[in-house]
Amino acid sequence: MNFEYKVTKFIKGKIEKFDDLISIEEPLEISLKYKDKEQWVTKNLSITMRTPGHDEDLVRGFLFNEQIIQNLDDIESIESFGDKVGQYNIQNKILVTLKNSKHVNISKIKRDFLTNSSCGVCGKSSLDALEILKKEKTPKLNPKLSQDIIINSPSILKKNQSEFAKTGGIHASGLFALDGSLLSLREDVGRHNAMDKMIGDSLIKNYFQPNDQFITCSGRLNFELVQKVLMTNIGLMIGVGAPTSLAIDLANRFDMTLIGFVKEDSFNIYTNNQKVIMV
Amino acid sequence: MNFEYKVTKFIKGKIEKFDDLISIEEPLEISLKYKDKEQWVTKNLSITMRTPGHDEDLVRGFLFNEQIIQNLDDIESIESFGDKVGQYNIQNKILVTLKNSKHVNISKIKRDFLTNSSCGVCGKSSLDALEILKKEKTPKLNPKLSQDIIINSPSILKKNQSEFAKTGGIHASGLFALDGSLLSLREDVGRHNAMDKMIGDSLIKNYFQPNDQFITCSGRLNFELVQKVLMTNIGLMIGVGAPTSLAIDLANRFDMTLIGFVKEDSFNIYTNNQKVIMV
Repeated sequence: MNFEYKVTKFIKGKIEKFDDLISIEEPLEISLKYKDKEQWVTKNLSITMRTPGHDEDLVRGFLFNEQIIQNLDDIESIESFGDKVGQYNIQNKILVTLKNSKHVNISKIKRDFLTNSSCGVCGKSSLDALEILKKEKTPKLNPKLSQDIIINSPSILKKNQSEFAKTGGIHASGLFALDGSLLSLREDVGRHNAMDKMIGDSLIKNYFQPNDQFITCSGRLNFELVQKVLMTNIGLMIGVGAPTSLAIDLANRFDMTLIGFVKEDSFNIYTNNQKVIMV
Repeated sequence: MNFEYKVTKFIKGKIEKFDDLISIEEPLEISLKYKDKEQWVTKNLSITMRTPGHDEDLVRGFLFNEQIIQNLDDIESIESFGDKVGQYNIQNKILVTLKNSKHVNISKIKRDFLTNSSCGVCGKSSLDALEILKKEKTPKLNPKLSQDIIINSPSILKKNQSEFAKTGGIHASGLFALDGSLLSLREDVGRHNAMDKMIGDSLIKNYFQPNDQFITCSGRLNFELVQKVLMTNIGLMIGVGAPTSLAIDLANRFDMTLIGFVKEDSFNIYTNNQKVIMV
């Protein structure tokens, strides 16, 4: 599932406008209805950021892989519910009703699941919760940028990574001054962790001066990474890979400039492109 | 943080042994101690799979990004605790004690966090919980493999992906027969979701015949993806990218064959390499 989106592309010093195709990222809330001691109970089990489509496959696989069910016979029904949301008119809630079966691992369901930091929506009931922030936190930067600084920032990141060259399997996040100098760099197998570590480092060292800085990270740009950068009040975020639909939505909502697909002689500006001044 | 690991490399039809460097992936449990109505409360907040190192930066950034704290003054102390674990002798538990401050967002902490499917350890207190499975679920395949089938499987995945060519930003998981034919393919912005969807699809269509199949996925191989494949009893997993330390540990523990870094004329066998028969 994808959609067309108007992108400003800088290539070899020239500006082109083109229609890019963006992968859709939307939260899916999975709820479970099951019988426990003769009572029917409904429990919110998980929120995952997914590309809509094959949602029933997703919950079947998820429940099986998490060992909540032993086989598909343990499922009575799967229904999408709730109002259709977003510009794609998608239902983002799914209810799985389990059979009253001895195979169903009730103790597993009842256990308090721990969240983890790889999901920006954990503990947030919906994207709308972010609206509360908007009053306090709005990136207002109209950045003046050099094309060279944008294009060079991923390779500066890579050069300064201690791990990547060795293992080829690790992500990085970096805080840069607008002149292109690297202020903080952290690495991790999880890109969300690399971002948390870099922000944690910059907080304790008092590095943040949001109007004069940008953040560059390896890999693709998703909702979660944009949400973390929003917390810093920095209004410019650069990624090596493609952004998701929700990353773009969120950046648009908070006037953040989102740049992706940075290559040797080109990059794409996805949001706020009226306000970016190239120098 | 990384470690040296002996890898069997197939390159242009020849076998080489070499010492590869592997990125370390280990769970970190973050607990929070805070004062609520004159009582000190300790709550497990999150388990994240991270590369050890800069763990204090990670929790500072995480608490700030999740808006549990407004600034670092809200933190009284950060301590690592518990026994050292694993061959790297790492402490995998961290306790953050918050000041009794009006800035601390208690309601946010107290809210039931929802888990999400992007973390294999959610709902599992430790890796040792997987030991329970071992008695029932052990891949026993000594696969006979053609180098061509291994090398071609990522490109078959890519050719059959409807989304990737268009957006460049989506992951895929595929179920293959040992003769190289593709049985099921699913895509998603999250690689864990692509795997859940493919497994869910294969379950409802009764595709699984574990001894005659393998699973190939785009991107890197982490703990979570290996754990999901283990549930299918399939003993051979192929990835385009690098595996983490924990992916290798888990595959070794369950006699699963793990192949990574598949390129046009080479790939690496990380586990079970005594048992793989190349044809």
